Amino acid sequence: MSSMETSVGIVEKQFFTFAEAPNKIVLESGAELGPVTIAYETYGILNDQKDNAILIAHAFSGDSHVAGHYATDKKDDKPGWWDFLVGPEKGIDTNKYFVICPNILGSCKGSTGPSSINPETDEPYGLNFPMMTIGDIVVTQKMLIDHLGIKRLRAVVGGSVGGMQILEWCVRYPNMVQAALPIATTMRHSALAIAFNEIARQSIISDPNWNKGDYYNSQPPNLGLAVARMVGHVTYLSDAAMRRKFGRKLQDKKSFSYGFDGDFQVESYLRYQGEKFVNRFDANSLLYITKAADYFDVVDLMKTPALETKPADNKIKYLVVSFSSDWLYPTYQAKELVQALKYKGEDVSFCEIEADCGHDAFLIPDDRFISLIRGFINGIS
Amino acid sequence: MSSMETSVGIVEKQFFTFAEAPNKIVLESGAELGPVTIAYETYGILNDQKDNAILIAHAFSGDSHVAGHYATDKKDDKPGWWDFLVGPEKGIDTNKYFVICPNILGSCKGSTGPSSINPETDEPYGLNFPMMTIGDIVVTQKMLIDHLGIKRLRAVVGGSVGGMQILEWCVRYPNMVQAALPIATTMRHSALAIAFNEIARQSIISDPNWNKGDYYNSQPPNLGLAVARMVGHVTYLSDAAMRRKFGRKLQDKKSFSYGFDGDFQVESYLRYQGEKFVNRFDANSLLYITKAADYFDVVDLMKTPALETKPADNKIKYLVVSFSSDWLYPTYQAKELVQALKYKGEDVSFCEIEADCGHDAFLIPDDRFISLIRGFINGIS
Repeated sequence: MSSMETSVGIVEKQFFTFAEAPNKIVLESGAELGPVTIAYETYGILNDQKDNAILIAHAFSGDSHVAGHYATDKKDDKPGWWDFLVGPEKGIDTNKYFVICPNILGSCKGSTGPSSINPETDEPYGLNFPMMTIGDIVVTQKMLIDHLGIKRLRAVVGGSVGGMQILEWCVRYPNMVQAALPIATTMRHSALAIAFNEIARQSIISDPNWNKGDYYNSQPPNLGLAVARMVGHVTYLSDAAMRRKFGRKLQDKKSFSYGFDGDFQVESYLRYQGEKFVNRFDANSLLYITKAADYFDVVDLMKTPALETKPADNKIKYLVVSFSSDWLYPTYQAKELVQALKYKGEDVSFCEIEADCGHDAFLIPDDRFISLIRGFINGIS
Repeated sequence: MSSMETSVGIVEKQFFTFAEAPNKIVLESGAELGPVTIAYETYGILNDQKDNAILIAHAFSGDSHVAGHYATDKKDDKPGWWDFLVGPEKGIDTNKYFVICPNILGSCKGSTGPSSINPETDEPYGLNFPMMTIGDIVVTQKMLIDHLGIKRLRAVVGGSVGGMQILEWCVRYPNMVQAALPIATTMRHSALAIAFNEIARQSIISDPNWNKGDYYNSQPPNLGLAVARMVGHVTYLSDAAMRRKFGRKLQDKKSFSYGFDGDFQVESYLRYQGEKFVNRFDANSLLYITKAADYFDVVDLMKTPALETKPADNKIKYLVVSFSSDWLYPTYQAKELVQALKYKGEDVSFCEIEADCGHDAFLIPDDRFISLIRGFINGIS
């Protein structure tokens, strides 16, 4: 792969299974789960000192495919979701760093989740999958990092629900984290964020095909899942971005249909987003991961000493990033995080990026964002 | 009724049916509908000059019951939805003014709508009900005002979708309107507002019980309608109000359930709102009225001369009111309306009320709001 094409090139999903006895982990709820498989991808090369590793945590419906392509024919294959940021000579430079992205526990993208086979029944877990938390997700990530022989991560980076994982890394394993970049995230969900997640969940649960989570051998709750995605999708955008992108433009027609087939482009767009999502995501995974995000709350932990008994050798360097039009995790919530970290005496930088594209801004190429991440990562020592 | 209790007391719903030949009206879409019944309530006494009438237009899921009680035992009966504003010596003083509130066409609260009997089939209309617009709603209101022998309304007042009706009154019948109070409203829906309406509609349409609108003799689409209401309800609130009211407080439990029954108060509250709504509203009416609101667009009309051929005898006095935390129809949209009216040389006052309770602020008792309306209404001459 040439650095000219500034892509990590062809990548492959890998799998790590905690198979040794006891092959179960105890979750925060007290429930046991095992064996657990974590799908992950890596980019770049781990150096001999094993001190150039960066962990990237993906958002709620994301996956381990951060950068590059799976197929040799790129036309058939979308690049990874942070391909604009991660690659040779990119913001997170894979010529320098060894980047790891694990798919989260509870997802449906290779890691163990509600659609995985329950070894006790040889059927998919469905609602027998135990509720996991963001903390549990990070525990399994730590097991993967141990497995890779890495003692300390140069940085942990993630946006949205990925940012929550970053904060859990900092409170659970501060000695393993040199720098932390929580992006477009929060220390805990507001009532508004819980409300939108609950609407998405109720949309799925109200679909008769959901069948209390037992639909893997029947028609899945696609209609409910599509509406759930529409709700989520709107919360990731902004009033300004939607005005710019759609306004009141009509789809196909020159005048109103005076019916319910959808007149406005924004209606067709949302329906398309909903329909596309059902082909790539599992309804039960949405239920579990949104619930984990709602439970997530590190406000008290951020204000108290680290959980590890040994004090941290040196402070974690933090870069907190928010986007001005993000109304799901607004800047005031990022500032609350900065304030908590400063109160603890942590080394924290903060940047609010002016962007009118809402919460999704962290997934959209932006030179200011890329430069900010590049500068901060390269300054870690 | 004593003015001490400052209530309009016991009121009764009345009905007006356009029964004379031709008993059909032609709607904006070109479709015909008839006969049409409009349910309405009145408060106070129409004076001999018939010049003290005020029309109040209700919001999307509202009804004609603005003030007072239906039952003699008030414990069994909720007061009207603007009881804090409308009554003897209240902001809109029924000792002085004759207040009329019609239930809108397409609703399910007494006026003709999709749940009404189609005289051609003797079955409920369902989707055979023709699509109506905010303009059509106002045409039927004008027929009611004609029927009451009123030539000119002292004022037309309404919030949200009610405010849209106020603007249609001004562009369609400017000579019949002395003053107009469009409150918490917009000249047209943004893409964001259309998006939330479309999600609500898709939630209903995705419910198998909806059955293409034909459910009046079977189980109605209660689950879909409940989720639709949850979506709507959140858009009527604000981040700040939800933080104040719910924050992350748990319902009943002392710790997390690690399940999907709902842990947070905001979840239970939303479910309750959804369940309550299905007992008082028809799913098809939601579809039709949200679509009418999405179609509504008076931006061009607000910038051009009145539709009536005869020029207005005198200018309409406008009071445009917005609320600072309303993110469904934000203040910038109210300012666009003010700007359009000023451009036309209209007599317009504007007030943004600082309130953290979101779009619903116009339905919540607030002394500043009441004083503002009182002062403006009493100053009309």
